[in-house]
Amino acid sequence: MKQIAILGSTGSIGRNTLRVVEAMGGAFGVAALGAGSNVALLAEQIERHRPRVVSVTDEECADKLRYEIKARSVSDSPSIGVGVDGLSEVAVCDGAEIVIGAVVGALGLLPTHRALEAGRRVALANKETLVIAGELMTRTAEKSGAELLPVDSEHNALHQCLRGERRHEVKRLILTASGGPFRTASREVIEQATPEQALKHPTWRMGDKITIDSATLMNKGLEVIEARWLFGFSADEISIVVHPQSVVHSMIELVDGSIIAQMGVTDMRHAIQYALTYPARHPTDLPPLDLTAYSRLEFEAPDTERFPCLTLAYQALRAGGTMPAVLNAANEVVVAAFLAGEIKFGEIPQLIRAACEAHTPQPVSSLETVLAADQWTRHWVKSQMSLVIGHRSLANDR
Amino acid sequence: MKQIAILGSTGSIGRNTLRVVEAMGGAFGVAALGAGSNVALLAEQIERHRPRVVSVTDEECADKLRYEIKARSVSDSPSIGVGVDGLSEVAVCDGAEIVIGAVVGALGLLPTHRALEAGRRVALANKETLVIAGELMTRTAEKSGAELLPVDSEHNALHQCLRGERRHEVKRLILTASGGPFRTASREVIEQATPEQALKHPTWRMGDKITIDSATLMNKGLEVIEARWLFGFSADEISIVVHPQSVVHSMIELVDGSIIAQMGVTDMRHAIQYALTYPARHPTDLPPLDLTAYSRLEFEAPDTERFPCLTLAYQALRAGGTMPAVLNAANEVVVAAFLAGEIKFGEIPQLIRAACEAHTPQPVSSLETVLAADQWTRHWVKSQMSLVIGHRSLANDR
Repeated sequence: MKQIAILGSTGSIGRNTLRVVEAMGGAFGVAALGAGSNVALLAEQIERHRPRVVSVTDEECADKLRYEIKARSVSDSPSIGVGVDGLSEVAVCDGAEIVIGAVVGALGLLPTHRALEAGRRVALANKETLVIAGELMTRTAEKSGAELLPVDSEHNALHQCLRGERRHEVKRLILTASGGPFRTASREVIEQATPEQALKHPTWRMGDKITIDSATLMNKGLEVIEARWLFGFSADEISIVVHPQSVVHSMIELVDGSIIAQMGVTDMRHAIQYALTYPARHPTDLPPLDLTAYSRLEFEAPDTERFPCLTLAYQALRAGGTMPAVLNAANEVVVAAFLAGEIKFGEIPQLIRAACEAHTPQPVSSLETVLAADQWTRHWVKSQMSLVIGHRSLANDR
Repeated sequence: MKQIAILGSTGSIGRNTLRVVEAMGGAFGVAALGAGSNVALLAEQIERHRPRVVSVTDEECADKLRYEIKARSVSDSPSIGVGVDGLSEVAVCDGAEIVIGAVVGALGLLPTHRALEAGRRVALANKETLVIAGELMTRTAEKSGAELLPVDSEHNALHQCLRGERRHEVKRLILTASGGPFRTASREVIEQATPEQALKHPTWRMGDKITIDSATLMNKGLEVIEARWLFGFSADEISIVVHPQSVVHSMIELVDGSIIAQMGVTDMRHAIQYALTYPARHPTDLPPLDLTAYSRLEFEAPDTERFPCLTLAYQALRAGGTMPAVLNAANEVVVAAFLAGEIKFGEIPQLIRAACEAHTPQPVSSLETVLAADQWTRHWVKSQMSLVIGHRSLANDR
């Protein structure tokens, strides 16, 4: 029985990982669970999966968790850590061969890095890890021999397509993008879009932040950066094709012109199980993909005029160093502001571009370097936004 | 420089193989060429590629060839064989590592078998070889360690999809079918179709026989039988999906529900080059596939009511032994009769079914067994047809 550790066990990826573990009946055991403040659910997971190590946000949550564990009369209560140190203990917990990296945001960086240093297989669902620290993470993995496996449908698809191929015979990676809710909208409509409109994603149900990223196509831009680090392809070797049905999860083009594509149902358990069992494949209880159920599959070139975030992401990847971290942080801040009704949809790329232009990229020598760039960006964008918002309310008052 | 031998060098596959060899500039040399009666073209090929061994249909052709070669003042004239013995010498010619099996019909059987016995890599474009003698051929290849690589877009696609996978983790093969010219026609229309209507294939330009096979979907049925022998999957593990655009050349489904598909432009040089260079891939000068140029890709379940040949092929595969040889021979005879205007389109499956029902399958112990079944079938179907045709003209006379 292989032991796993989950960073972010109460989130969507974490919960689905535990469903996969249960469905595989005994092939995997749960050594450690890192959560945030959802103590009730963590206690339930502890009762069911009996990890030896867990972690929560802070001491207050830890106290609540102890109470919950007692109330459930769980024998062999796990050791309980807190904060980023607690998460790091989960990440390098004794005996766990596979670490699921599913903590949202920059918090996951250090624990993921620790797991890679310890040579664990890391099944990565946290996008920021590779976007802001891809160079550092892959360097660490190379040194320790750790494996990095993607847990999202596009990169998982690329991983599957690349299985039988040799690197130098692969010409390019082709990420598919649903195109989001504004795929057919005019530039003018997109620029004035409301949060309500932007949150209507055509094929996937996800959190608000990533749904807005799908509407701006920044999500695909970030995935290009991830793909660069996961698979070692340059920006010029990674393309995007818009595919509204999201049936083809991604593709590769070989030097002989052949295209290999991976298709499947849109359920994240597929990629999770793949990352757990690779190189083996195991049956799932997911419904099979029925291609005949789709009236058509469509493919379009992405429009960088209407979706400038794509270009910004490629530019940040090419600039290298700390620039992708700046892109990512700027995007987080402006998306939050858009969701709060403070800025317009059309201002999202404008503000990100301004932040990238204001930044001089530095080589990434440590996590501290990228975290400093992240912090700088957040401050810079926020002050920039207050200027914009202040100017606008002034204009409205006139 | 790897040496190749081509069985059927003046046909479409043979000519395209030589184009690929030329485009690859020096990676491959031509050791032997087997042709039929197109002596002028063979002489041209000899002048250009300088094979050491060639073969033609008979002594008359050989004399003509000697004259042609002299007229072109080719130094080092090749040795010239005739008939099936000549083809067999081409197949086992010294120093040829790869044999392209592209002779049409049953004539290719013995030479292909010889090449497999000699442990050569056989790039197979001759459908009959595996349909009527698949068991024998694969048994021979296993014994000698010969490789069998497919040279048609569907099986080549399957071969590519299977590269990174383990046999027991592959659930099924999914062959795509264009659906032919009668994809959307009613049963009544199909049954009364004329040769002219049946020869209008929507996506591929091919010979008359295979174009009719595409219209009845027998072509796909024969490909199911081929796939069984090429890849070792049972009839239950091979499905067909109709895909009118022929962009997805075929797919596999894995046990975890994932589908891997191969796509490409519809040019046979792709599969030919793949079979020559495998496991390596080399750049081609073929145009790349542009998915965004298609307004849509469609997938439908095949309709065995309107296309009963599909069911007949599966039944023959399941019956095993000599039954696929009977299916193939019956199909050849009735398609020729249909093209000659002697029978109706709707009678094609009826006559094939009757032949299969009249036959008791025998185990295949040698090429002679299948050739005997082939001969029996041709006589049986022809006599059956004269009854039908006689009865019809009698009815018309009344």
